[in-house]
Amino acid sequence: MLSAQNRQIRLARRPVGEVRPEDWAHVTEPAAAPAAGQFAGRTRFISLDPAMRGWLDDRPSYLPPVALGEVMRAGSIIEVTESNHPDFAVGDLVAGTFGVQEHVVCDGRGTLRIDASAASPSTYLGALGMPGMTAYFGLLEVGALQEGETVVVSGAAGAVGTMVGQIAKARGCRVVGIAGGPEKCALLTGELGFDAAIDYRAENVKKALRTHAPDGIDVYFDNVGGEILDAALACLAMRARVVVCGAISQYNSTTGVQGPANYLSLLVRRARMEGFVVFDHAPRFAEAAREIGQWIATGRIKVLEHVVRGTLDDFPQTLQMLFRGENTGKLVLELT
Amino acid sequence: MLSAQNRQIRLARRPVGEVRPEDWAHVTEPAAAPAAGQFAGRTRFISLDPAMRGWLDDRPSYLPPVALGEVMRAGSIIEVTESNHPDFAVGDLVAGTFGVQEHVVCDGRGTLRIDASAASPSTYLGALGMPGMTAYFGLLEVGALQEGETVVVSGAAGAVGTMVGQIAKARGCRVVGIAGGPEKCALLTGELGFDAAIDYRAENVKKALRTHAPDGIDVYFDNVGGEILDAALACLAMRARVVVCGAISQYNSTTGVQGPANYLSLLVRRARMEGFVVFDHAPRFAEAAREIGQWIATGRIKVLEHVVRGTLDDFPQTLQMLFRGENTGKLVLELT
Repeated sequence: MLSAQNRQIRLARRPVGEVRPEDWAHVTEPAAAPAAGQFAGRTRFISLDPAMRGWLDDRPSYLPPVALGEVMRAGSIIEVTESNHPDFAVGDLVAGTFGVQEHVVCDGRGTLRIDASAASPSTYLGALGMPGMTAYFGLLEVGALQEGETVVVSGAAGAVGTMVGQIAKARGCRVVGIAGGPEKCALLTGELGFDAAIDYRAENVKKALRTHAPDGIDVYFDNVGGEILDAALACLAMRARVVVCGAISQYNSTTGVQGPANYLSLLVRRARMEGFVVFDHAPRFAEAAREIGQWIATGRIKVLEHVVRGTLDDFPQTLQMLFRGENTGKLVLELT
Repeated sequence: MLSAQNRQIRLARRPVGEVRPEDWAHVTEPAAAPAAGQFAGRTRFISLDPAMRGWLDDRPSYLPPVALGEVMRAGSIIEVTESNHPDFAVGDLVAGTFGVQEHVVCDGRGTLRIDASAASPSTYLGALGMPGMTAYFGLLEVGALQEGETVVVSGAAGAVGTMVGQIAKARGCRVVGIAGGPEKCALLTGELGFDAAIDYRAENVKKALRTHAPDGIDVYFDNVGGEILDAALACLAMRARVVVCGAISQYNSTTGVQGPANYLSLLVRRARMEGFVVFDHAPRFAEAAREIGQWIATGRIKVLEHVVRGTLDDFPQTLQMLFRGENTGKLVLELT
């Protein structure tokens, strides 16, 4: 075991605009052994999230930026291979922020031992992980969703969007999803039970919103920013809530973020736009996971995953799929 | 009395960008006589408000646009000259939305008979009128102000801004005002008791905010939009509230509104940006006027008015003073 090698993806330089292969360093170092109170594990699944792009910029945010030369931050699922920790046994599957590397040593803090009999392991990176929590608390707490309201979500076919729409349906709301391409839209209104879907690549989003949300939008859950946010702002109902979750259309911009020109609609509509960070709701994650787990068990919520099978070196190009709209549902890299 | 003439300012065409003299029609028509249940009055004071610019555009808002050919909408104070109404006597001063005209006939609905012994009549267009109500409910209800918080207000030397800062001081907060020019800034920190003032024409607003609000802004009350809104968004405290009251820097734009590029700060700071319309709070106007009246009576709040004395024909150029930052405090046209 002393000869085990730990392959890692480290940040080599800060990207400008789209992340390039040269922004990463592929490094191999000897795998560490667990000390007393620690366990070692092998990475099985790595989560790919739009928020990763923000972590690469050197500016203040809700988490410090990934440092140059540091292993890239990522949520992942590992399998315990050696343990000196009383609560973790060899073979256990553990979720945590272990980074983009093949081997991990950990004292267990900030991790979750997962029950693979209840749901497939990767579910803990999606529907039962951060994207699920983000959808749940963003919609119900920040969005203060009420039964019977009209919900619109952008990035609707993504990890968070698919959950937002389905949770809103489970709570008795009308749901319109905005996504790119006819396949994603068909999935939303088909398998996922959305009331309507708008293909932003083919349709005038504002006109389509007026058609599908004729009485206005009560909760707009925004994952994309840019022109789609502006279209939604133009179609708010009175006392609407705009939940600012992300702005994937802007993350690779080299000319600065495009601010929402229609923000004065907040005044006319007595509406609010509010941001949040899912970690603030950590004390209630277990409660949310229970409710989401029940919806999954009863078939009310379908878990949508886009699993790429490969090696650690596939991380950079897999990440780019997010910004090209190439994934449907939660994007995961499974190390085979 | 049959020969009395009613001079009026009517909207002749919709302005593009800055309002021009040719956008108005100066009209004279015979003054009407009051029917049973009506009274007639002569206009004494006309209110000039930034919101007027929005009423001239043909787009949906919280009030319908002023129609082409219609008398310009305005709040004003009239003196009753003839009455067939049991509740109004000759000599009474009455506040209402009577429009930019010299003579008015009215059945009394939506008006307020004012007590000129308690405060000078024009106060009912400012500190005790819509600007005062806007400051009061925007700050206390929408902004959910708490004692000890840091408040920043833009357009701080205007009708609403002077009231926002003083109400926040009266409620035990630290107050920073943003205004244009050293005279206005001196007034804010001098007579009005603000803790600090930033001259946006001479200073880097973001840097100055970091100096004067080192722990971040808890409530930002925005009257101006544009770059100043962006600077404030960059300096929010956690769980800050941004109150969207207006955007005077954008009203004359011919290239579209500049959206706040820093809106993602709402996410990082778990903050919200919320719009409101003062009329929604009408049921509580009397309560607010009582509290503001007490603050005025005890000298806690100073009433700041910029009274232009002239004729009805001076309305167009007086209105432009607002957009050129030429007024300090509430701008009023007194007909002499």
